[in-house]
Amino acid sequence: MVERRRPLAVKEAIERVMRYSVLGEKEQVSLRESYGRFLAEDLIADHPVPPFDRSPYDGFAIRSIDSKLASTDQPVEFEVIDEIGAGSVSEFVLGEMQAIRIMTGAQLPNGCDAVVMLELTKVFEKEEKVFMSIKRPFNSGDNISFEGEDTPQGSTLVKKGAYITPGTIALLATFGYATVTVIKKPTIGIIATGSELLDVGEQLVPGKIRNSNSFMIEAQTRRSGAEPIYLGKLMDDIDECYEAIKNALSNVDFLITTGGVSVGDYDYLPEIYKRLGANVLFNKVAMRPGSVTTVAEYNGKLLFGLSGNPSACYVGFELFVRPIVRSYLSSEKPHLRKVTANLGKDFLKANPFTRFVRGKLSFAKGELIASPVGLDKSNVVTSLAESNAFIVLPGGTRGFQTGDQVDVLLVEEQIGSEISWAESFK
Amino acid sequence: MVERRRPLAVKEAIERVMRYSVLGEKEQVSLRESYGRFLAEDLIADHPVPPFDRSPYDGFAIRSIDSKLASTDQPVEFEVIDEIGAGSVSEFVLGEMQAIRIMTGAQLPNGCDAVVMLELTKVFEKEEKVFMSIKRPFNSGDNISFEGEDTPQGSTLVKKGAYITPGTIALLATFGYATVTVIKKPTIGIIATGSELLDVGEQLVPGKIRNSNSFMIEAQTRRSGAEPIYLGKLMDDIDECYEAIKNALSNVDFLITTGGVSVGDYDYLPEIYKRLGANVLFNKVAMRPGSVTTVAEYNGKLLFGLSGNPSACYVGFELFVRPIVRSYLSSEKPHLRKVTANLGKDFLKANPFTRFVRGKLSFAKGELIASPVGLDKSNVVTSLAESNAFIVLPGGTRGFQTGDQVDVLLVEEQIGSEISWAESFK
Repeated sequence: MVERRRPLAVKEAIERVMRYSVLGEKEQVSLRESYGRFLAEDLIADHPVPPFDRSPYDGFAIRSIDSKLASTDQPVEFEVIDEIGAGSVSEFVLGEMQAIRIMTGAQLPNGCDAVVMLELTKVFEKEEKVFMSIKRPFNSGDNISFEGEDTPQGSTLVKKGAYITPGTIALLATFGYATVTVIKKPTIGIIATGSELLDVGEQLVPGKIRNSNSFMIEAQTRRSGAEPIYLGKLMDDIDECYEAIKNALSNVDFLITTGGVSVGDYDYLPEIYKRLGANVLFNKVAMRPGSVTTVAEYNGKLLFGLSGNPSACYVGFELFVRPIVRSYLSSEKPHLRKVTANLGKDFLKANPFTRFVRGKLSFAKGELIASPVGLDKSNVVTSLAESNAFIVLPGGTRGFQTGDQVDVLLVEEQIGSEISWAESFK
Repeated sequence: MVERRRPLAVKEAIERVMRYSVLGEKEQVSLRESYGRFLAEDLIADHPVPPFDRSPYDGFAIRSIDSKLASTDQPVEFEVIDEIGAGSVSEFVLGEMQAIRIMTGAQLPNGCDAVVMLELTKVFEKEEKVFMSIKRPFNSGDNISFEGEDTPQGSTLVKKGAYITPGTIALLATFGYATVTVIKKPTIGIIATGSELLDVGEQLVPGKIRNSNSFMIEAQTRRSGAEPIYLGKLMDDIDECYEAIKNALSNVDFLITTGGVSVGDYDYLPEIYKRLGANVLFNKVAMRPGSVTTVAEYNGKLLFGLSGNPSACYVGFELFVRPIVRSYLSSEKPHLRKVTANLGKDFLKANPFTRFVRGKLSFAKGELIASPVGLDKSNVVTSLAESNAFIVLPGGTRGFQTGDQVDVLLVEEQIGSEISWAESFK
């Protein structure tokens, strides 16, 4: 009646999942639609930046040599022979004691080697000609943005797999990417199981709770970069579930079920895996919460059987589903970002297994502080809203105190980590 | 010809903008669509959590008093009189030496005061009845999730104005929010100005650059929580611009122009503000980059005249536009989150005005480190892609060295700050 399961180390569990990494297909989206997607190819500079020597200020282009003797007492006068708006090019070559009025961003005229800011000049007319004078000397190269000084042509500016930020968009535009090659979002089917689940709009009745996991996982799916497809809530009926799961598998890239993975009589996902002939990678992990997390593989597709407890479900998604999604999106840093922080509050409970405590990372005077949020029980949903991190407490430890150094995984960050937390862990 | 402008302190500039804060209208969206939006009302618990005393494990509900004498040598036997699936309620009241099989999440039967985990029991049949035995005593309250222990009914769980995370979604579902009241996204019209601007798909020609600012600002607008409306690229023609801006103002909540705000001859936004009869809040700020940032108000609507330089434009958006958007979205923390970090690299340049250096925040052994990214010139676009923070170096300083404590503003975070960086600054 009761299946005995051997708990697997978190590290080994993550490794088993990652062995089934596949890279998604590419697709083209318009630059405008690319925000928040993931680059499928390196972003290459198609031209040097700046593309030509240009003026970073409004002012006058001069030959620095002509300014050598300028001083407050002896201003030097230049004849203004032309003016260049941004986007225009002067046809003049600057001669001795000549200046050309130049706008911010405009290309430098030939012959000049310095720019004087408008504020430092005095402009006046003399014999129907325009002049300007300056009161100090300038050096060759002063106030010039040189061609390629920011970026030489052909350089790789952002690596594939990167999350596209507003800054990335600016680069894509600068280098002519009117369309951007991104990885097609993988689809994740989501099935909630459990006879105790009410719809969100339903009144509570004794013994029942509202289905929160599937909505939460939909949002986690979006945050991870994938597209959720909610396939419904199933009652605890094994035949119905079997059919639903089998059908879903042909329509999605990954499948998540919540609930139904405990060792209790009503938890029949193991039976469904058996009927499918799916290869169970593991069905127990040495962690809290989420020890009953089960992952199986069927024809190369992964089925994630997450716990029905909200916190366990949440943690299971971030540890096992997120990295496989990010790796599908060609990220070289698919795992949650790991940082070291000082514990902000005592956590005295024993940790028979590796514990992922919902916590909040804060900063004080250059220091990282991670504090547990609320009660740390796997069924406590309120701690999830405040939490932006997991505090990782290794199995076999107890009695962590304020100030102790702990590993922390950041869940709201787009920056990831190459290796999973567990791999760096002894 | 040249207008002399008095630079305003950053703090005062932000305050002038924030005086025009308005709160947006509410709208209802489905729970599923609420991810990434901002709560318009506090999230209240409509019932206690847990809603009833329940079992956090699969196991057996017992009366702890009956287990008092249990030991490895002398297991105690209980008769199993019923079983409760998740979502069901038992009609039995537990009597002496009786147990009820209970699934994870199910409501405790009357009479019980402890739960024994399945793994710690032995189940067997005797005289056609089912029994289970245990080898150790349990205390009253063991393995029970008590009604309301997580959250009492009526408590405020998330304050209005909060960014809706997957964790918030879990709470909204738990408390029956099938629809969520959010603030309608404000619309931000975006106009790029400048004859030097090419479309992203165009080939570079001498003197011209591709329009990157408007795409970048569209993405910053989305990140801030608003909806961008790109209104096109205008040449340096004042009548055309005037008409475009006047028309735009009646169709959007905020208007951003990029370029056209310098003191050069071709920068004619000041003239347009004059024709409109707009109230110019400031047209020069004591900061780098972005000193030419101009903000005006017309019939209560704000017009942001951001610099045409990408970095200046980027900084101007985050310092002045983001907080007004977040305040529209009812956030009590509309400004960028400020942290203190240690400088990761020397920055020796003088800072005649407050400088916002594009930087990257990283963490090492519990310490926050902020390092400048790339060249720090306002026209350098490549530094923006790598940057996730601004390092703030106060005006009148110079020669910052590795390890110096600096203020850092985080641009990729949803968590904000109640007061702007500048207000906490002397």
